[in-house]
Amino acid sequence: MTEAPPLTPDFDVWPVGRRPVSATVAGSDVVVTWEDGIASRFDFWWLIDNSPMPEHVNRTTREPTLDLSALPDDFHATAATVEAGGGLYVTWSHGVSASRYHPGWLAAHAYDAPAGGGFDADDRPRPVTWDAAAMAEPPSFDGSRILEDDAALEAWLTAVAVYGFGRLRGVPVEPGTVERVARRIGTVRETNFGRVFDVRSKVDPDSNAYTALELTPHVDLPTREYQPGLQILHCLENSASGGEAMMVDGFRLAEHLAAEEPGTYRILSTERFTFQNRAKTSDYRWLSPVIVLDPATGSPTEVRIAGFLRGPLALPAERVAPAYRALRRVFALSRDPRFRIAYGYRPGDLVLFDNRRLLHGRAAFDPAAGARWLQGIYLERDELHSCLRILRRRRRLAAGTD
Amino acid sequence: MTEAPPLTPDFDVWPVGRRPVSATVAGSDVVVTWEDGIASRFDFWWLIDNSPMPEHVNRTTREPTLDLSALPDDFHATAATVEAGGGLYVTWSHGVSASRYHPGWLAAHAYDAPAGGGFDADDRPRPVTWDAAAMAEPPSFDGSRILEDDAALEAWLTAVAVYGFGRLRGVPVEPGTVERVARRIGTVRETNFGRVFDVRSKVDPDSNAYTALELTPHVDLPTREYQPGLQILHCLENSASGGEAMMVDGFRLAEHLAAEEPGTYRILSTERFTFQNRAKTSDYRWLSPVIVLDPATGSPTEVRIAGFLRGPLALPAERVAPAYRALRRVFALSRDPRFRIAYGYRPGDLVLFDNRRLLHGRAAFDPAAGARWLQGIYLERDELHSCLRILRRRRRLAAGTD
Repeated sequence: MTEAPPLTPDFDVWPVGRRPVSATVAGSDVVVTWEDGIASRFDFWWLIDNSPMPEHVNRTTREPTLDLSALPDDFHATAATVEAGGGLYVTWSHGVSASRYHPGWLAAHAYDAPAGGGFDADDRPRPVTWDAAAMAEPPSFDGSRILEDDAALEAWLTAVAVYGFGRLRGVPVEPGTVERVARRIGTVRETNFGRVFDVRSKVDPDSNAYTALELTPHVDLPTREYQPGLQILHCLENSASGGEAMMVDGFRLAEHLAAEEPGTYRILSTERFTFQNRAKTSDYRWLSPVIVLDPATGSPTEVRIAGFLRGPLALPAERVAPAYRALRRVFALSRDPRFRIAYGYRPGDLVLFDNRRLLHGRAAFDPAAGARWLQGIYLERDELHSCLRILRRRRRLAAGTD
Repeated sequence: MTEAPPLTPDFDVWPVGRRPVSATVAGSDVVVTWEDGIASRFDFWWLIDNSPMPEHVNRTTREPTLDLSALPDDFHATAATVEAGGGLYVTWSHGVSASRYHPGWLAAHAYDAPAGGGFDADDRPRPVTWDAAAMAEPPSFDGSRILEDDAALEAWLTAVAVYGFGRLRGVPVEPGTVERVARRIGTVRETNFGRVFDVRSKVDPDSNAYTALELTPHVDLPTREYQPGLQILHCLENSASGGEAMMVDGFRLAEHLAAEEPGTYRILSTERFTFQNRAKTSDYRWLSPVIVLDPATGSPTEVRIAGFLRGPLALPAERVAPAYRALRRVFALSRDPRFRIAYGYRPGDLVLFDNRRLLHGRAAFDPAAGARWLQGIYLERDELHSCLRILRRRRRLAAGTD
């Protein structure tokens, strides 16, 4: 048995807290006992699947190269020990080379923690819902150095993960900045409305957004199977009268309905409404509940609320009237001052929001009395979570841990 | 009552088949009787929601401007008649202006057809699953004029909607063509791997795809909440030995498991596995069943099968061993010749496939013995369906109907 510094299976940093002191093979598990006396079981298949060795994972891509289905059913660990450096060393049957596990990585991934917590692969910040009584203004941050400052970026993105939105103030007032900010977070999601879209009154609009009309609170593109997860709006000019912006937490509306109007909630979360974009050169449509529940948790994962992006409802006749009652109810709630916050856009304001959770709207404005120009862009939700993980990783690396 | 040619609420063409002959108000419906004697009920709210009048829908964007929640609960139709031109004319309470409905549009959207069929807003072609006994080669089409020829495009895209894939032969062998073909269909989906990605052996790969390694059958980017719906691979060079391509219908695997191994199917369609991209500058992860079911139909809507894009499984200890048994089983089936078809890439071949349904893989190749170069790009599934709708609409327009 040789001893080498244990590798990790990924590019992350795994500070060593509690160390393993002994290991043994028991049944179909390797049992590791930690210095605090607690033992953790690791299934053989789980261990080989997470082996960080160069024989099992490409060390450049960190993607596994071992094909689990090529191993026989009776594949097993033949021995397990803890090395002086704290690594777990496991030898395998069927000619598979031995594996050595990093103690910090192993402790972080112990899935049978006795408190029932175990390790949770879902590390996303938990949403906190809000209404007008809880939230007066968008959570706001200094945007003047957002393109360089990682701490400002992390604070802002965390607010978006938790509350569904966050505002930067003092962002440079320069067309195209919205894309530079987006690329700080991740990959841009293009749509048929382009990459960066200009929200202002246009001569030949292909969306009510590009008029001076009022927009009732809505999500963008519920007409798509994958409605964009994040939207950024950056204000470049605003001298028009009117056009006040508003936001509503769709998850709060869902909570309210679930608690106070369960019949409405049931219809909105089970019936498939028709969403459709009536356009000249594209015809996107999608059938979906208005409140989409995560099958694993039963909690809302997205809302699809939009007065003007729907197509003809196609339900059995006896379910049409109840569906419209429920739809009108959620539209009414989305305009109820109890749930809505209003704010003005100043040039240099930039708002990032979860387009599958928050509804946004605006009052009508008078394009003759001044200019109102926002630039917008979309990304997916998981760009934000990936970016937050990398920012946290950089902090761990900077802390020089292990 | 004035008479004008009835408008449609969208940009589509609605040929007039059976005509309405009379209409009346009954309860909360307008009842329309057609020339064949059959009657259709249309709920008041459904009708006003689909009113095509300039007062209710912006005629440029075709997006509704009427806010349903601004109308009172007792809003109703006061009268309904059929005009000489065949339009349905409805007058409304509460000062709402009258609506006139196009007879072709109305007949197509009658949701209470007595046969129980009604109108189905989901017009996507139904998938037909396949295995090696049913499919020998990818469905293949002439690609030489794909950038100009609508009929070739429609035939090819229909095959992709039905079978999950389709191959063009004779596409120009020129770098970047893959993006031109993609833009014929719709908007490109960028990812952290770029817009157009080059699949060939690279010096510092960030994916096993960019090595000469074997790739077991997999979907791309199951690490993302929204794994790309469509993928195009375009062969520019192939003189390497090895590298044979293969495809597997993930929906067929799911059918097989549901019928033959229901315990495995249950685990794969309910347990949340961890998918993770272990990268230097991004950290995407997503928890999901391997077989994702549509809550409305119970049928698979996507599969997430990838040997090398997973992260540490985080399940309660007693569910880890069964989850790995199920996972190894679906990996084994994905390599089983009963389900797999193999084919070679010739320069000028271009394959479009549903990346959430079909698994693709390749044998290892020898980069020293010749070059193998594919260019790839992603789009979303609904780009294909939108494109098919527009192609069909163009045919209807060309037919000069109505």
